[in-house]
Amino acid sequence: MQIEGTSYHTIWFDDNVKEIKIIDQRWLPHQWEIMALTSSDELIEAIRDMAVRGAPLIGVTAAFGVWLICKESANKKSPNLYFEKQILALRAARPTAVNLNWAVNHQLEIIQHGSSWEEKMTTSLAGAKSIKQKEIITCEKIGDWGLEIIQKMYEKKQEPIQILTHCNAGWMACVDWGTATAPIYKAAKAGIPVHVWVDETRPRNQGAAITAWELGNENIPYTIIADNTGGYLMQKGEVDLCIVGSDRTAVNGDVANKIGTYLKALAAKDNHVPFYVALPSSTIDFNMENGMNEIPIEERAAQEVLFIKGKHEDKLLEVQLAPDDAHAKNYAFDVTPARLVTALITERGICKPSKEDILSMYPENR
Amino acid sequence: MQIEGTSYHTIWFDDNVKEIKIIDQRWLPHQWEIMALTSSDELIEAIRDMAVRGAPLIGVTAAFGVWLICKESANKKSPNLYFEKQILALRAARPTAVNLNWAVNHQLEIIQHGSSWEEKMTTSLAGAKSIKQKEIITCEKIGDWGLEIIQKMYEKKQEPIQILTHCNAGWMACVDWGTATAPIYKAAKAGIPVHVWVDETRPRNQGAAITAWELGNENIPYTIIADNTGGYLMQKGEVDLCIVGSDRTAVNGDVANKIGTYLKALAAKDNHVPFYVALPSSTIDFNMENGMNEIPIEERAAQEVLFIKGKHEDKLLEVQLAPDDAHAKNYAFDVTPARLVTALITERGICKPSKEDILSMYPENR
Repeated sequence: MQIEGTSYHTIWFDDNVKEIKIIDQRWLPHQWEIMALTSSDELIEAIRDMAVRGAPLIGVTAAFGVWLICKESANKKSPNLYFEKQILALRAARPTAVNLNWAVNHQLEIIQHGSSWEEKMTTSLAGAKSIKQKEIITCEKIGDWGLEIIQKMYEKKQEPIQILTHCNAGWMACVDWGTATAPIYKAAKAGIPVHVWVDETRPRNQGAAITAWELGNENIPYTIIADNTGGYLMQKGEVDLCIVGSDRTAVNGDVANKIGTYLKALAAKDNHVPFYVALPSSTIDFNMENGMNEIPIEERAAQEVLFIKGKHEDKLLEVQLAPDDAHAKNYAFDVTPARLVTALITERGICKPSKEDILSMYPENR
Repeated sequence: MQIEGTSYHTIWFDDNVKEIKIIDQRWLPHQWEIMALTSSDELIEAIRDMAVRGAPLIGVTAAFGVWLICKESANKKSPNLYFEKQILALRAARPTAVNLNWAVNHQLEIIQHGSSWEEKMTTSLAGAKSIKQKEIITCEKIGDWGLEIIQKMYEKKQEPIQILTHCNAGWMACVDWGTATAPIYKAAKAGIPVHVWVDETRPRNQGAAITAWELGNENIPYTIIADNTGGYLMQKGEVDLCIVGSDRTAVNGDVANKIGTYLKALAAKDNHVPFYVALPSSTIDFNMENGMNEIPIEERAAQEVLFIKGKHEDKLLEVQLAPDDAHAKNYAFDVTPARLVTALITERGICKPSKEDILSMYPENR
């Protein structure tokens, strides 16, 4: 998608210098920089500190991370030990997104037959590029399926479709198109008028900072609201549908997503607003029967609640929001039970959030 | 209650200098100042810009405002015209809190028989002081009734009672004790261990800024959470009860309170957590049959969503959170339907949020 009129992906391999490049998302929307990830430690830190974030993008970044680890292992005295250690650290960088482990496992599988580190490097780089391409295609397909939903609503309403989204499940969370935003971009390209209610998404404000910036760059009308506001808008009939992303979805249809998603799903149910979750199948944990009980929820630093980043007179800085000795808890995700989800929008189509329907769509995981 | 070990009210009449004094709440918790309100324009601006806020305190401030308007009218060429104009401006300072109009009406009634502005000044000052005293007593009674609820829970649980509150319905929103916080302070004084989950309460962060500061000053254990978090905590069984305040409650039990209250009430219902609303009867609009349809919801400046105040290296400043050209909407309140409210805690006791029960408790309003 576009940033100030130029097309970008969130991550790419720079063939000239043989380096992984990312858009550093930490100071968006005020500042964005292209950053090279030159070591696996740097890459792991970029995931942990959310220079890259969003389940699909974390997966793709981790796939490139395996290439970096192979490359580094080749020069170590105990390459296998180093490799194992770094793979473990990479897996632990973020706990909730299943895409991270999915991508690492996928890479380990394809490199296992490599007879040298050189060979493993070649296959893991090809693997990462292929995962990246697949994520782009997957997101575009999600967009096409989601477009059908918006198209039908528009045929009936004949007025701009009001979409509420939480956090950033946009192209900045993926490689291109996004998950929750893909249907929105597709609708806009199809000439359907849409307007997006963008949940600010405290504590890290990915909505106000990243989703708003993304939509603005694509000229999609949007309005930022405090996370507290969505319920009121639904009561007033100002939301036609909700679309969110997912960091992990269990095979029973329970959806882990950014903290606060559950509250919006409750409000949607209470006001008969359809609540869709857009996700690539790499986000579905086919080994997990029950999301409510089993999905691990990341707890992040209290500082992210007590301080906030912003721009002041063209300087970027962090301000303290609470008393000096304040305590805070910072759970990054919650789990929305399947009963509150209208349907999942995947790359293969739209399905009910139930084991039966999910496995009918992905029979190879039965 | 206490600020750094000294007892304060949020508003008082300084008899030495014949001035209304308030605690300016705009830069809490980083800075608090005592401010004199020397003209009715200043007082109206203090309400509008939220130097004083919270329905009960807005009411008391407005009552003192009537005294100021009487005082100023005495020196005007057309005192009656001036009086009417300023009373109208005072009424319009904030639209949602019914206490404002309640206090103004109460004052107009008691001054109507004054034969001179001098006399009106005397009666309106006495009236304001009396409204202030009544608010203190009212809040303390709310605390006593609420204490019974917490006491019973503690007898059963024998572990710290976990209370979630939204926004600041503390003593800083009243004169002393607070509404939602009064039961908490009473419980702590009775030796019952409590812990408070403090919703940050975007966009103005009254929770992180004011409630946290209040509780810290009274040595009550608390933890600040993003507004998105309460649902997750309830799912995990980490909330025993919710207590919030109200800006206006209709006679059918529908409760207007800070935006986001409705979302927490939905989560409480979904997780069988009791959801209480603590409010003085001055907050009940006995002329309003249906809160969902009739309570006017204040829309405030988008800037309050797009910028946030905080402390940076001992300086107080505002930082920008969203892209330069971002749009935002800022609805200050929402309405929680009575069906989601377990009970109202009033100064006369605890009652179901229904017309029948409310009017049984306040039969003079039948």
